[in-house]
Amino acid sequence: MIRLLAPAGTLAAGSVVALDEDESRHLTVRRAEPGSTVQLLDGAGTRAEGRLSRAGKAWSVEIGEVRREPPLVPVTLAVGGGDRERFGLLVEQAAQLGAASIIPLQTEHTAGVSTRLREEHLDRLRRRGREALKQCGAAWAPEVAELRTLPAFLANPFPGARWLADPEGGQRPPLDVLEPLTIAVGPEGGFSPEERQALVGAGFRPVRLGRHLLRFETAALAALTAAWLSREEGSHG
Amino acid sequence: MIRLLAPAGTLAAGSVVALDEDESRHLTVRRAEPGSTVQLLDGAGTRAEGRLSRAGKAWSVEIGEVRREPPLVPVTLAVGGGDRERFGLLVEQAAQLGAASIIPLQTEHTAGVSTRLREEHLDRLRRRGREALKQCGAAWAPEVAELRTLPAFLANPFPGARWLADPEGGQRPPLDVLEPLTIAVGPEGGFSPEERQALVGAGFRPVRLGRHLLRFETAALAALTAAWLSREEGSHG
Repeated sequence: MIRLLAPAGTLAAGSVVALDEDESRHLTVRRAEPGSTVQLLDGAGTRAEGRLSRAGKAWSVEIGEVRREPPLVPVTLAVGGGDRERFGLLVEQAAQLGAASIIPLQTEHTAGVSTRLREEHLDRLRRRGREALKQCGAAWAPEVAELRTLPAFLANPFPGARWLADPEGGQRPPLDVLEPLTIAVGPEGGFSPEERQALVGAGFRPVRLGRHLLRFETAALAALTAAWLSREEGSHG
Repeated sequence: MIRLLAPAGTLAAGSVVALDEDESRHLTVRRAEPGSTVQLLDGAGTRAEGRLSRAGKAWSVEIGEVRREPPLVPVTLAVGGGDRERFGLLVEQAAQLGAASIIPLQTEHTAGVSTRLREEHLDRLRRRGREALKQCGAAWAPEVAELRTLPAFLANPFPGARWLADPEGGQRPPLDVLEPLTIAVGPEGGFSPEERQALVGAGFRPVRLGRHLLRFETAALAALTAAWLSREEGSHG
């Protein structure tokens, strides 16, 4: 079944949703037929089925059954805003792996990355996170927060567990099934020693996630997988 | 310290290794100085230190200490040869996560992927796997095998454990610290029901690796991480 995106909060049973240009183009590429059933995701926990109709180039969907899914146990990735292409890939993969939010950090070492993520790239990242839902079928898209400095990030209180992806770290500690988790990942070149110390001081526990030094996007995905396995195995084991 | 690549088997203590054009260019970009110490990796288990020298544009390294690292416990990824850009990324990330070899598969659903991996892309993939060593420091690069059909792949005997990445699968089974592992991952659109059956018949156990349907490259990385954690936690736990 074809999956489509709708703006958050627009899916109500019995209503008719007009699809935007991107989604209409997607339907043309997929050679959709009016009258066929599609799935709609709003990226904010709502999943609906509906029936396609078309007037000229404009497609719309008459919404049938609507289901709300509860939010995921919050996993936040706080990642050095390095190369924006790699960061885009990270958002896409993190959406598949069920990250609830992604906070791009400005750190000592991101300042030297010429292709680094900047404010003006965030909207594209957010779209990319939502687009990933069409493929993986998740009801929630990761929130992509504004860029912030490490001190600004650490100024917030953190509920739950805190991991720092670190090649010198130890094994992942046990993680409660419903415990929120925040994972900090350095950019290209890592966190500076002072930054690392600030993170450890804020309760981030260094966790090793692979045999070798991992690039930031690989480290983030390995951490999400490790966290998911902790909960899965904790809940069934 | 700057890391450089040398052809497999060329690193011997006391010898002088001439660097190729790519490595020489890398040194120029990194503003290397003659006389400085560098690390060399041959991607086949040898790690050496050496001293740089330059004659015009041609750089060479006088090899000092040489260390051989034993091969990794073999983890093989057999992955549907889907979109070649995503496959390239998979090779790069798999190198960081310590995959010993990668076998691209021609499957029912790869035939329909217009940007699919073809024979002529394999050399570039192999270079990309080796290039990843410069960043992560691993002594072994993943071998990237020739493309083959699923029946040709299954005609080989498999030592050790076999996982099939599958959204409908169960929890990862225990993995012995020294047990070889082969992980099969479908391309875009997955394996066909017949292919899946052939894999299960050949002893591949369906294992679920995340909450949602994962793209092939994300599934492969999640599987490598899960396997690494199994061994780490098995060996220390």
